[in-house]
Amino acid sequence: MKIVTLAGGIGGARFLRGLRRARPDADITVIGNTGDDISLFGLRVCPDLDTVMYTLGGGINEEQGWGRAAETFTVKEELLAYGVGPNWFGLGDRDFATHIVRTQMLEAGYPLSAVTEALCDRWKPGVRLIPMTDDQVETHVVVDDPERGRRAIHFQEWWVRLRASLPARSIAAVGAEDAKPAPGVLEALEEADAVLFPPSNPVVSIGTILAVPGIREAVAAKTVVGVSPIIGGAPVRGMADACLTAIGVETSARAVAAHYGADLLDGWLVDEADADVADKGPEGIAVRARPLLMSDADATAAIARAALDLAQELA
Amino acid sequence: MKIVTLAGGIGGARFLRGLRRARPDADITVIGNTGDDISLFGLRVCPDLDTVMYTLGGGINEEQGWGRAAETFTVKEELLAYGVGPNWFGLGDRDFATHIVRTQMLEAGYPLSAVTEALCDRWKPGVRLIPMTDDQVETHVVVDDPERGRRAIHFQEWWVRLRASLPARSIAAVGAEDAKPAPGVLEALEEADAVLFPPSNPVVSIGTILAVPGIREAVAAKTVVGVSPIIGGAPVRGMADACLTAIGVETSARAVAAHYGADLLDGWLVDEADADVADKGPEGIAVRARPLLMSDADATAAIARAALDLAQELA
Repeated sequence: MKIVTLAGGIGGARFLRGLRRARPDADITVIGNTGDDISLFGLRVCPDLDTVMYTLGGGINEEQGWGRAAETFTVKEELLAYGVGPNWFGLGDRDFATHIVRTQMLEAGYPLSAVTEALCDRWKPGVRLIPMTDDQVETHVVVDDPERGRRAIHFQEWWVRLRASLPARSIAAVGAEDAKPAPGVLEALEEADAVLFPPSNPVVSIGTILAVPGIREAVAAKTVVGVSPIIGGAPVRGMADACLTAIGVETSARAVAAHYGADLLDGWLVDEADADVADKGPEGIAVRARPLLMSDADATAAIARAALDLAQELA
Repeated sequence: MKIVTLAGGIGGARFLRGLRRARPDADITVIGNTGDDISLFGLRVCPDLDTVMYTLGGGINEEQGWGRAAETFTVKEELLAYGVGPNWFGLGDRDFATHIVRTQMLEAGYPLSAVTEALCDRWKPGVRLIPMTDDQVETHVVVDDPERGRRAIHFQEWWVRLRASLPARSIAAVGAEDAKPAPGVLEALEEADAVLFPPSNPVVSIGTILAVPGIREAVAAKTVVGVSPIIGGAPVRGMADACLTAIGVETSARAVAAHYGADLLDGWLVDEADADVADKGPEGIAVRARPLLMSDADATAAIARAALDLAQELA
């Protein structure tokens, strides 16, 4: 069975671990979000790709969900001793090595998709991980800064430095409209038996991937089942509500499904707390209520299995 | 008193510490060798500049004479886990931060001299450290590789990886003939009351600095006193003999003085083991025999003081 999953960071990576456990025999391609990529200290950092790679490759810091296990921060401390920041982005020494290899390959002319493949040679994530595009797309957030007025800042500055404390007036994937899907993305979608949306952020993760011309159409042509990132009116983790509010979508499992739309989604898994959505969901989308907390490996595998079952039912 | 010193790495840095101790009131400018600079992992590494900066700034690993104290090697180990080398160059995590800052500034368009000044803002070495040039000069060594035949390799590959085990057929400072002295170099020489050569490598450290057009002439116009890096027919440390052999100069205190020449050198300090050179040195060069082992801070300060005394005597 060939499965394609669009994925952001932590939620996507954990769901993928469950999917791999649920269907160890499946051929899984992951289309990763690169909209939150950022250049720091002259190095190219791809947080979502790395979270997927480290999580599936066994190198993740399990407690925080991102970054490397047994991490140290000597390089960052030394950079700060030189007065070189930012200090709000937690790059550890082990992580630095990944960004050094990536940057060196990018500067040598390799596209990000080839670089990601090379990095995965080490991590062996058990899936094929492809960035959504080899072109540069950066998610920017327009905020009303009390000191500097209305301005656009990098998504990471809003998300990590400000912890989304300033309301987003708008969110834009800068460069997306001119980006092309990375090699392999459309081919994998073409061949897929099912496409799954993990409980990733519908705006800045899944939404950004879908903003690359050609991807939305290729996804829509397939049987698509999503897992709600919203349970009982709140994000399971992260601050997806701040992103949904910025695009005028209510923070609810039903509203997110309606936002994706029946032209895209065939099935939608909601938590049992949102069973009412299953009874009266958006027209044209088959909704099932299941326990959606990815509390351990078994629970996560069960969610992935339920998503696949629904996809097979709807195929 | 205004003193200019040409300096390589360990020997130069230790001599400078002695000089600063001997004459805390002096205005000292150090013209640093950049011929052994190398790009590793996409980062620009300047071993000699950093050795001077760390040594005078209190950050040096005292035992090995280069690199940072209390160093760790996490980034390097991770790079090797990606299969990315070389593994023969010992870049530690603290050191990486220096190269990241340097590379970022160079890529932003700052010349190496400005970058070095910015790095020294942190280290406060108590001297003005200027690279010999802002242009790229790389010392290459021609060797007869048993496996790959005659070829030119980077000085660091010969020095660090091969430990100079393959005889050098020739040594060339590639790019030197087209290089310009960095801003401040000729001005400092113009204003100097004395120019000192520490016991640095006469070929690949001092020799490379002198190969930048304009520097040799500006040095020669001043009172110049050198400290022999050769004691009793052997280098005090390092493998200067391998470099001297490559350019056809005997490994002796007398031969090195003759190599510099009376047009450049006014005075020459040799060790007491080489007192015969003092009795019958190269014509036109005043030679004095003193204990030249930089065994501790007092001994090193005494050597610097002897060099300055000789310079004042000859001025």
